[in-house]
Amino acid sequence: MDSDIILLGHGSGGEMSHQLLEQLIIPILSGSAFSQRNDAAVIDCPTRQLAFSTDSYVVDPIFFPGGNIGDLAINGTVNDLAMRGAIPLAISVALILEEGLAVDDLRRILESMAAAARHAGVDIVTGDTKVVPRGSVDQVFINTSGIGLLNDGVSISGDQACVGDRVLINGTIGDHGMTVLACREELALSTTLETDSMALNHLVADLVATFGGKIHVLRDPTRGGVATTLKEIALQSQVAIQLNESSLPVKPAVSGLSALLGLDPLFVANEGKLLVIVAAEVADEAVALMRRHSVGSDAADIGAIGGDFEAGSLILNTAIGGQRRVEMLSGDLLPRIC
Amino acid sequence: MDSDIILLGHGSGGEMSHQLLEQLIIPILSGSAFSQRNDAAVIDCPTRQLAFSTDSYVVDPIFFPGGNIGDLAINGTVNDLAMRGAIPLAISVALILEEGLAVDDLRRILESMAAAARHAGVDIVTGDTKVVPRGSVDQVFINTSGIGLLNDGVSISGDQACVGDRVLINGTIGDHGMTVLACREELALSTTLETDSMALNHLVADLVATFGGKIHVLRDPTRGGVATTLKEIALQSQVAIQLNESSLPVKPAVSGLSALLGLDPLFVANEGKLLVIVAAEVADEAVALMRRHSVGSDAADIGAIGGDFEAGSLILNTAIGGQRRVEMLSGDLLPRIC
Repeated sequence: MDSDIILLGHGSGGEMSHQLLEQLIIPILSGSAFSQRNDAAVIDCPTRQLAFSTDSYVVDPIFFPGGNIGDLAINGTVNDLAMRGAIPLAISVALILEEGLAVDDLRRILESMAAAARHAGVDIVTGDTKVVPRGSVDQVFINTSGIGLLNDGVSISGDQACVGDRVLINGTIGDHGMTVLACREELALSTTLETDSMALNHLVADLVATFGGKIHVLRDPTRGGVATTLKEIALQSQVAIQLNESSLPVKPAVSGLSALLGLDPLFVANEGKLLVIVAAEVADEAVALMRRHSVGSDAADIGAIGGDFEAGSLILNTAIGGQRRVEMLSGDLLPRIC
Repeated sequence: MDSDIILLGHGSGGEMSHQLLEQLIIPILSGSAFSQRNDAAVIDCPTRQLAFSTDSYVVDPIFFPGGNIGDLAINGTVNDLAMRGAIPLAISVALILEEGLAVDDLRRILESMAAAARHAGVDIVTGDTKVVPRGSVDQVFINTSGIGLLNDGVSISGDQACVGDRVLINGTIGDHGMTVLACREELALSTTLETDSMALNHLVADLVATFGGKIHVLRDPTRGGVATTLKEIALQSQVAIQLNESSLPVKPAVSGLSALLGLDPLFVANEGKLLVIVAAEVADEAVALMRRHSVGSDAADIGAIGGDFEAGSLILNTAIGGQRRVEMLSGDLLPRIC
């Protein structure tokens, strides 16, 4: 690269765009299909059903303990595909860069994306790069979209939760959101926290292979946290969900910081967690399976579907023995957390 | 919608996000799969090969004569899929909204997207919405990604141009770029120009069905225009390409404005044009076919592959009988044109 910073010309489609693509983006991100340099990638599709997902990432700051906007963007879309029980196959990467962005920062982000894609076993097959004038975007926004393969007979969806099912989670809640919040300029708190951003597709593949149709719902509690996600599932499946506060795994640093800032970790974003709603008879075995994975070492059974409550309710059985109805927050707890 | 403008809370994942989704976005954009409200959509895939493409749209201004950022985003990705000879099947829509955006503007954009998708015959199946604080993005950026079906035996790619082939285009060049430029605040020129933004998949399907393997390359000359796109193809296919200036269809308003501003329409973006590189024996017939489509009424044969030039060269045979080597521009002619 001739320049240390991104210039408007890098988004022109001309010579400078080609230089950015050929010297930086493609060498770092490229899978085999990427190198065809066509308007669209061509990929083989061995199954009759696909999962398809998209997400834009606008996290602020773009670098934070344990990760950055790049691996977050790969893991997030890999996980969205995995939550349908799909095997992630191909990912697209669309970058919107602010004029003046340091090329070294972009390189670091791209390298994290490539490493995250390798870890998840998914190919980055196509992309797009736009550069906008200073002030038209804050540093870098990334969209990733993904295609996953669905095997016959897999029907995992937010409307499949059944009375009697158990609610499981693969680990501690609120890590990502509190990490990003703590390192914002206006706070700049020094904590031991790191994002939990991680691909969950290998764990999901193991769960699906082992328990098949006994797995009813998979959902990653990102924006809005565990509470909002469970409330959505309660509404989609038209069931009540009970959550046991004392079973929820929470890191002391997360609960401490939450108390300090007046936030509820139940509503804080996670980027490497999944909620698993399974038939009760396999719940213990599923927790044990999750604990054997590095991304599931703190897995726990945190609640159940059903009880004498209105369909669509989310009920928190509090640590001191009370019951509290949990609703979605109206507005924004933490903007630009992912 | 309770509010006339977009608020940060609309991106929270909570109650306000749900209101925006349920009351505005999903009713306007929804296909059948969209309504499943899961992390990823599930779609049927009847072929063994897929095309996959992504593009972010950052055009400024977001409304311009003949279109807006919404239909541009749908048509652009539909066209990228069509350029591989694929039949567009499913589109994702990811919105990044600036706090304070008028809800009426968003509605108008979404309605244009829905209309463009209907026209192209493609389903919008999944999406994402982020809201960022004022000043973190300029009004609205949109990413669309798309999946298309490839039939066996279709092998259209930028590296397939052969010596002797003809170069065709479906109409006038530079319309989109000059339209957007003319209505920028700093110019605000009053012209009769409109964007050519339009889905080309129906035209492509007709071309592929009629001429099959005789079609070697399809490419839409967006950023960088006809010149940059042909130069890319020359490099990918390792052939020389000759372009006949006097055959290039250009609207008088485009050539007039280009002359005024010192721009070359050959490098100006198009959003409803395609370059078709075909075996010479079907060139006349292909031009005739394109002219029968509303998006091809000004179709023309504008050049040929080959000649006594270095592989990778793009040569312009000028209107006054000269020959000029055309290179990519280094930097940016027109930022934020798409």
